[in-house]
Amino acid sequence: MQPIYLDNAATTQVEPMVFEAMLPFLSDEFGNPSSLHPLGVQAKRALDRARESVARTLGAEPSGVIFTAGGTEANNLLIKGVLGGVLGGVLGRAGQKRPDPGKEPHVLSSKLEHASVLESLAVLGQDCRVEWVANDDLGMIDEKELLSRVGERTRLVTLLWGNNEIGSLQPAERLARAIKSKNPRTVVHFDGVQCVGKVPVRLRGTDIDALTISGHKIHGPKGVGALVLGRRVELNPLLSGGGQESGRRSGTENVAFAVALARAVELAKERLSEQVGLMARLRDRLEAGIRSSVSGVRLNGDPKNRLPHILSLSFEGVVGEVLLHHLERDGVYVATGSACSERKSEPSHVLREIGCDDGRARSTLRFSLSRRTSEEDVERALDVIPRVVEEVRLVVGELS
Amino acid sequence: MQPIYLDNAATTQVEPMVFEAMLPFLSDEFGNPSSLHPLGVQAKRALDRARESVARTLGAEPSGVIFTAGGTEANNLLIKGVLGGVLGGVLGRAGQKRPDPGKEPHVLSSKLEHASVLESLAVLGQDCRVEWVANDDLGMIDEKELLSRVGERTRLVTLLWGNNEIGSLQPAERLARAIKSKNPRTVVHFDGVQCVGKVPVRLRGTDIDALTISGHKIHGPKGVGALVLGRRVELNPLLSGGGQESGRRSGTENVAFAVALARAVELAKERLSEQVGLMARLRDRLEAGIRSSVSGVRLNGDPKNRLPHILSLSFEGVVGEVLLHHLERDGVYVATGSACSERKSEPSHVLREIGCDDGRARSTLRFSLSRRTSEEDVERALDVIPRVVEEVRLVVGELS
Repeated sequence: MQPIYLDNAATTQVEPMVFEAMLPFLSDEFGNPSSLHPLGVQAKRALDRARESVARTLGAEPSGVIFTAGGTEANNLLIKGVLGGVLGGVLGRAGQKRPDPGKEPHVLSSKLEHASVLESLAVLGQDCRVEWVANDDLGMIDEKELLSRVGERTRLVTLLWGNNEIGSLQPAERLARAIKSKNPRTVVHFDGVQCVGKVPVRLRGTDIDALTISGHKIHGPKGVGALVLGRRVELNPLLSGGGQESGRRSGTENVAFAVALARAVELAKERLSEQVGLMARLRDRLEAGIRSSVSGVRLNGDPKNRLPHILSLSFEGVVGEVLLHHLERDGVYVATGSACSERKSEPSHVLREIGCDDGRARSTLRFSLSRRTSEEDVERALDVIPRVVEEVRLVVGELS
Repeated sequence: MQPIYLDNAATTQVEPMVFEAMLPFLSDEFGNPSSLHPLGVQAKRALDRARESVARTLGAEPSGVIFTAGGTEANNLLIKGVLGGVLGGVLGRAGQKRPDPGKEPHVLSSKLEHASVLESLAVLGQDCRVEWVANDDLGMIDEKELLSRVGERTRLVTLLWGNNEIGSLQPAERLARAIKSKNPRTVVHFDGVQCVGKVPVRLRGTDIDALTISGHKIHGPKGVGALVLGRRVELNPLLSGGGQESGRRSGTENVAFAVALARAVELAKERLSEQVGLMARLRDRLEAGIRSSVSGVRLNGDPKNRLPHILSLSFEGVVGEVLLHHLERDGVYVATGSACSERKSEPSHVLREIGCDDGRARSTLRFSLSRRTSEEDVERALDVIPRVVEEVRLVVGELS
């Protein structure tokens, strides 16, 4: 029996059409885009086409697309690239002085962010003044507080558009407009890694300056992503060298994966209207099915403003990781939280920030769907989940 | 007629066995190595096996292997990672003070380095004291000068093991031993991107602390490389986030390409003894064939200490780029210099550093072989090259 994969927020299977698109560049069309002979020119053209496609699909200019090795690199590039430029120093302009205390660039973010944002901001440390905007218990940013904090010195606002653990979806376009109306020079960045293919994502006509996307969350391969700029943003590169990607990201371009990313983004958009309603219905069916047959289940995240594919539930009295392993024996693959935190011992920072105590955080599972998830998958999962929760609870009861 | 590809120093074709090794991880075995369910565990095991294989093949510990998106990232990680840690600041420890003038960490490198090293050192700017060790006109580092400059404060020596433009090969192991005997705390780094599969490359038993390798130069895909550490080197990560690669390089791991890199490194080593002699003989045949039938040809680089696959020749009175395009019409694909500098207008910095004037630098072609280059390729190329050089010279003569 094929396992039922409900961990698509961690990673997705490469779509056959995406695989086919990149295949030539892993075999005969292997040129280096910087080479001047026909094999190089062919590779350069493929890369240009991929760039144009990503730009067109997301409403940006080709010059705004910087291919990276993934979402983490795109977030690092944006944060360290923008703030490194302000700060000078190791990442920035040689010899430039550090800002005087009290005159550091101001950054706004939230404690619900992905680790790549939190850790990038931590590295900048005392060289910027980072303020954390409050959120409510549904995982929604406090809009009023956010706007009240945007000031003259606010260099960057960086926020997760759709939360990878609980699915809460920020009103990115409205927030961007409001931020820009307070300070047009503030760079507005959203991490849209979980949003592409799930909600309409488009830069043109919005005040979003920069968007992070990732291939492997949308049926592309692991190891590719992009930072997509909606307008000119001065960036200091993280990777220095041959000057590829217009000097913003050096290193021989991964042509095959750039082509794959472009195809994955195209397919995500083409299928958005057709698939998202279905995905949301299946997510609702899964939620209703579990809640109607299992007691002590609580939803994490916003029941209204949410991504269609992520369902975070806490199961009273059980340890999420134990439940996960029992479910896997019956062929249902889920997560306890974000993939990158699963091998750590601390409970999820996102769940803590929305007010879950440790017990509730540790009793949480994340179910995540994709457009490849079928009704049958959900029904089969619903045959398994209530029974397994009951079994685990019985064991816990006997032990205590 | 299949073109004759003599640009293998720019990039190589993916070997079918390498492609097959990574294929499962681009299709059914698509788990995120951080996921706890069986698909994740399977991916994690594949990644671990790839890491062990790279370590074993290059004589290091698995914990010393950091997978990156390529050679450029590995060089950036080593240089900015080592020096960022000393300097503190944007890349390093928050709040740490900059060193007092005159007490900056000392770095030794050469002007023959790859752009990713030169530009990384340029970014560090006034925060370190970078000294450039002299080289001779054959592209060999001045050993005595290098050693005389290693001192108490020398934090890092970073050098290109085998030059990508002219093929000159430094005595890396001897240099490392001598550097360490002067200062055991100096980090000794070699960029071995062009060396794997061409000369024996092994860290264990040497004083080399860190080695950069790249997949696409050795019949692996573009978009993967590694920094391989021979002993513990304190590194500040460039990419912050979920803590993958033992916290030294965050971001969901590109499992498929890590597996591909491991296979490419294994094959490079397995075939080293069998293929390298052949490669060198074909390179010698190419050189002799050209020099015997074309006048005004000069070799760049060291005729003795050199990589077996790179041949840099200057053709008096012709412009390299013009010659390149004439050769491509007859199906011979070559380069004017390093791939990443080909689209720039300045002549090669390497050729300038070995004493070529602009005219000679601009009249240079790089021919580069791989273990897939056949005797027939070389003979066919030799049918074409002398004739095309003569044609181009005739046109130049008529015009002048």
